[in-house]
Amino acid sequence: MDLQNYLESMGTKAKNASRILSFEKSENKNLALKKMSQALIENKDILITENKKDIDKAKLDGMKESLIDRLLLTEKRIVDMADSLIQIASLKDPIGEITSMWKNSDDLTIGKKRVPLGVIAIIYESRPNVTVDAAGLCIKSGNSVILKGGKEAINSNLAIAKVLNQAINDILPKGTINYVNSTEREAVNILLKLNKYIDVVIPRGGASLINFVVNNSTVPVIETGVGNCHVYVDEYANLSMAEDIIINAKTQRPGVCNAIETILIHEKIAKKILPSLSKKLIDKNVEIRGCNKTQVIIPCTLACEEDYKNEFLDLILAVKIVDSLDHALNHIYKYSTKHSEAIITENYSNSQRFLNEVDAAAVYVNASTRFTDGFAFGFGGEIGISTQKLHARGPMGLNELTSSKYVIYGNGQIRK
Amino acid sequence: MDLQNYLESMGTKAKNASRILSFEKSENKNLALKKMSQALIENKDILITENKKDIDKAKLDGMKESLIDRLLLTEKRIVDMADSLIQIASLKDPIGEITSMWKNSDDLTIGKKRVPLGVIAIIYESRPNVTVDAAGLCIKSGNSVILKGGKEAINSNLAIAKVLNQAINDILPKGTINYVNSTEREAVNILLKLNKYIDVVIPRGGASLINFVVNNSTVPVIETGVGNCHVYVDEYANLSMAEDIIINAKTQRPGVCNAIETILIHEKIAKKILPSLSKKLIDKNVEIRGCNKTQVIIPCTLACEEDYKNEFLDLILAVKIVDSLDHALNHIYKYSTKHSEAIITENYSNSQRFLNEVDAAAVYVNASTRFTDGFAFGFGGEIGISTQKLHARGPMGLNELTSSKYVIYGNGQIRK
Repeated sequence: MDLQNYLESMGTKAKNASRILSFEKSENKNLALKKMSQALIENKDILITENKKDIDKAKLDGMKESLIDRLLLTEKRIVDMADSLIQIASLKDPIGEITSMWKNSDDLTIGKKRVPLGVIAIIYESRPNVTVDAAGLCIKSGNSVILKGGKEAINSNLAIAKVLNQAINDILPKGTINYVNSTEREAVNILLKLNKYIDVVIPRGGASLINFVVNNSTVPVIETGVGNCHVYVDEYANLSMAEDIIINAKTQRPGVCNAIETILIHEKIAKKILPSLSKKLIDKNVEIRGCNKTQVIIPCTLACEEDYKNEFLDLILAVKIVDSLDHALNHIYKYSTKHSEAIITENYSNSQRFLNEVDAAAVYVNASTRFTDGFAFGFGGEIGISTQKLHARGPMGLNELTSSKYVIYGNGQIRK
Repeated sequence: MDLQNYLESMGTKAKNASRILSFEKSENKNLALKKMSQALIENKDILITENKKDIDKAKLDGMKESLIDRLLLTEKRIVDMADSLIQIASLKDPIGEITSMWKNSDDLTIGKKRVPLGVIAIIYESRPNVTVDAAGLCIKSGNSVILKGGKEAINSNLAIAKVLNQAINDILPKGTINYVNSTEREAVNILLKLNKYIDVVIPRGGASLINFVVNNSTVPVIETGVGNCHVYVDEYANLSMAEDIIINAKTQRPGVCNAIETILIHEKIAKKILPSLSKKLIDKNVEIRGCNKTQVIIPCTLACEEDYKNEFLDLILAVKIVDSLDHALNHIYKYSTKHSEAIITENYSNSQRFLNEVDAAAVYVNASTRFTDGFAFGFGGEIGISTQKLHARGPMGLNELTSSKYVIYGNGQIRK
């Protein structure tokens, strides 16, 4: 069977499964999640063996150590994946909730009811745990899922998908969890045109994957991830709080999208905070690239336009001294990818202006941008962080994997 | 200036305007809407003169009478457009509403706040009132708008856009209302690739326009409109109610998307309802195309596969006799465009199954499908009816033209 037929047939199966899943009982969905969790533990040796094939190939190919680490499955990581499914089972079922209900002027009772999206495709890079999390969140929210992971993790992902499918075989319809068994780029091209079967595609990965999906998909896309995030240290900031937040937001996990890339410092407090802050950053191995005003205060390399524009995703921090809140707001407007932005201030009016005027998925006063994720927000899980404005913005939990339908109760009404 | 530069420059202006509009006071937005309303009345002679150019050309080109009527501006219609802006001004401003707020386990207070989408592009066919309604709803919801109407209405639409822009010139930022002054198809192609500036595109028109937009846009799309809608007359229906609803849903305005195209009748009551119903339909000039079981009961032409599959948008009705609720559900699952579906029944369990299992934007018990629109639902306005599941489903009012951002109040929290 060629790739087109293979994927269309997968789309058909997923669509058919989604019809049944849409009114599946919570009890069955939770049972399936528990069986999946159990099956991961029971099959851990198989999973580790299959994962070793991917790890060996990655080493041969000279993959970076940090990427190999992301790819690696250990017994501990398999237990964590299994636990995450139990955690998802314990969440409230979003489906069936009536989010609002009213009578219209014709005496019709109109309710807005939460329903699944249908078929969700997720295209991601190398971390095998995404396979488990995505399948779990989609099942809980009554959706079927088509998964396409990176070619580096093909053996691990196929093994995981097989184990999960065996676990739910007697409980949920066939076609609930689908893994694309192909390492060809063409498979992604074909998937992106299957809008007849797929209701939404969520790309998870770097900017190039996301742009490729946006530019080629006829399936509606939810963009995730790219975060060029800022902390603005206001004239009225608590400086020790500012230092703690900047160090946390830059160094706690520099490779993730909610880490910061640039700090903006009000000129009136720059001399007070920069020497001590830069010492602490250097202690954490952070390279500082500053504007020319920064260079007057601390030794650092000169930041260029590109430094303000792109994510470093590394232990590098750009610094710019600004002369006002407006200057900071304009810099953020120009360079932000609208992911997470923070102000550190004790001034009430400045905090309110920042909250109102900054256009981003998450806008913070006096807290680290690192909190932008579904677990920290209390959603109990996360399928990604949307950086677009349509449908979902910010961390996406179970509710963001749902749509709605209007249910209307009449007693013979006709339109005049 | 070539078309690409012209539209990019329009996109830039609209984007810049949207930044200011996003925190514009309600008072100013409402003042602008009232001035726009007033300006339409004051300039009605100019609008009628410009509209006459489009009407004359349409007649020369041999346009269908019903389409010429949709294009026509009369004094009465201009007053109606002006009134609709006053109506929009009177609606509650959706922007700034905190739809939920909670504390997370780190003691952060997290609020979900309603914000504008940004820049909305609307691509539509010939009705000039869309220009006014769309501009009004976008302004009220804090969005800037790029409008591209059909070439048949170019003179009318340019005149309306000019009048509206003059009216808001001193109140809202330049670039709030943008009308694409081009009748080239290429303009649509270019617009659909401007995802750098445009946050969402809404096509309003026939299936071919919508498919073109879905297949060619890198801007997120909200699909509207196509409605292959059904009424299922259950074994336990009140037959006189069923007749009234079917006649209303088919004949009150046959050319619109929430009119019905097919009725499904349970075999146990087919002989009771069909003779009387078909007489009433024929009196209303409706042509009936029935299945072979229908033909045994009433004289009619035989319905083919295409009759069940497509919208007639005309005084034609397909009839199918089914042997069970499941049969009806399967027919609807196969042919429905998931717009509006109705069951007529007095049986509680059947009504619940229909509401739960039919996947459509609006699912009715004992009422006409003609109620699926923003005015009938009580939204006070409508930008279209979404038939997709992402972002908005069903009638789209002001809330559906908004996104959200999380505002987070901390006191120094960092991520552990």
